[in-house]
Amino acid sequence: MIEFEPIGIIRSPFAESEGMPIQPPGAAGIKGTVEVFEKYRPGLKDLDGFSHIILIYAFHKAKGFKLKVMPFMDSKHRGLFATRAPARPNPIGLSVVKLNKINDGVLHVENIDILDGTPLLDIKPYVPEFDEQTQIRTGWLEKARRAVFHKKSDDRFK
Amino acid sequence: MIEFEPIGIIRSPFAESEGMPIQPPGAAGIKGTVEVFEKYRPGLKDLDGFSHIILIYAFHKAKGFKLKVMPFMDSKHRGLFATRAPARPNPIGLSVVKLNKINDGVLHVENIDILDGTPLLDIKPYVPEFDEQTQIRTGWLEKARRAVFHKKSDDRFK
Repeated sequence: MIEFEPIGIIRSPFAESEGMPIQPPGAAGIKGTVEVFEKYRPGLKDLDGFSHIILIYAFHKAKGFKLKVMPFMDSKHRGLFATRAPARPNPIGLSVVKLNKINDGVLHVENIDILDGTPLLDIKPYVPEFDEQTQIRTGWLEKARRAVFHKKSDDRFK
Repeated sequence: MIEFEPIGIIRSPFAESEGMPIQPPGAAGIKGTVEVFEKYRPGLKDLDGFSHIILIYAFHKAKGFKLKVMPFMDSKHRGLFATRAPARPNPIGLSVVKLNKINDGVLHVENIDILDGTPLLDIKPYVPEFDEQTQIRTGWLEKARRAVFHKKSDDRFK
C-alpha cells in the first residue's frame, strides 16, 4: 500500500456530483479555489507565473469500482481505463485548470470540474512541451469528445 | 491518510534516476512496457483505440521533499509546486506516453521517462479536449522548457 496525505482542499460550486460538468471544457468560466494547507505554502512560490496548473486529487466520493463502465458520453460499456470515470481502483483525479491568482495560500482557479471539499494531493505546473501530444487518436471517444462541452454528469458513479 | 495500491509495474530501460530524460519529450522513441496486474486487465478493454495515455504512478525512489528546489532546468531555487520534481509531499508522477499496442495485459509504450520498477497507480486515456490548453504562460520555465528535449536528470532528488 502507498499512503498519501491531503495537502489542501478544493472548493467549487459543486456540492453534488450530479449535474456537474464532466471535464474542464464543460466547466469553462466556472471558478473555484484551492486552499493549500499552511505548512505547504512555501512550495507555491513561482507558481503564479503559470497560466495553467494540473491538480491531482482524490475522488473522495467514489466508492468501489467496476472494470467495465458506461461512460457519461457513451451508450456502450467500456474498459474502465479507457474512460475518465471517477470510480477507479485508485480513485485519483486529474484536471488542468486556469490559474488566475494566488493569495495567502489560496489559488483562484477557473474551469473547475471538481466536487467541493475534494482533498488535494498535488499541484504541478502545466507545460505544453511535457503535457501536449500530436497525432492523437481517441478511440471510442473520437465522436463523443466534442459533446463534453455541454454534457453533465449524473449519479452513476456515486 | 489516503491509501492506494499499485495496479501494475512500469518497465523501462532506466534502472537509475541519474541520466534519465526528465520528461517525455526528452525520451522520444524510448520504449517501455506497463504490466497491468491480472485482476485489473478487463479494465483495459477499448484502451487500444487511444494513441496516447496518461500514466499516474508513485515516484517510489523519492525520499522526503523540500518546498524549495533547484530544478534540473534552472539555476535558481523555485517553489516545489512550480516544478515537476519527483520528491513531493505526495510523490505522484504523471507522464503522457504513446501507446503502441496491448498484448495480454502488457502495454507497449513509447516516450517513457519513468524509472524501471515504478508502481503504476492509474491509466487514463489522453483526450485533447480535456487535457490541452491554449494561451499558456509557463513562468520560470518559459525559456528553459525547450531544453527538455536534450537535458538529462542527475542525482539531486535521490
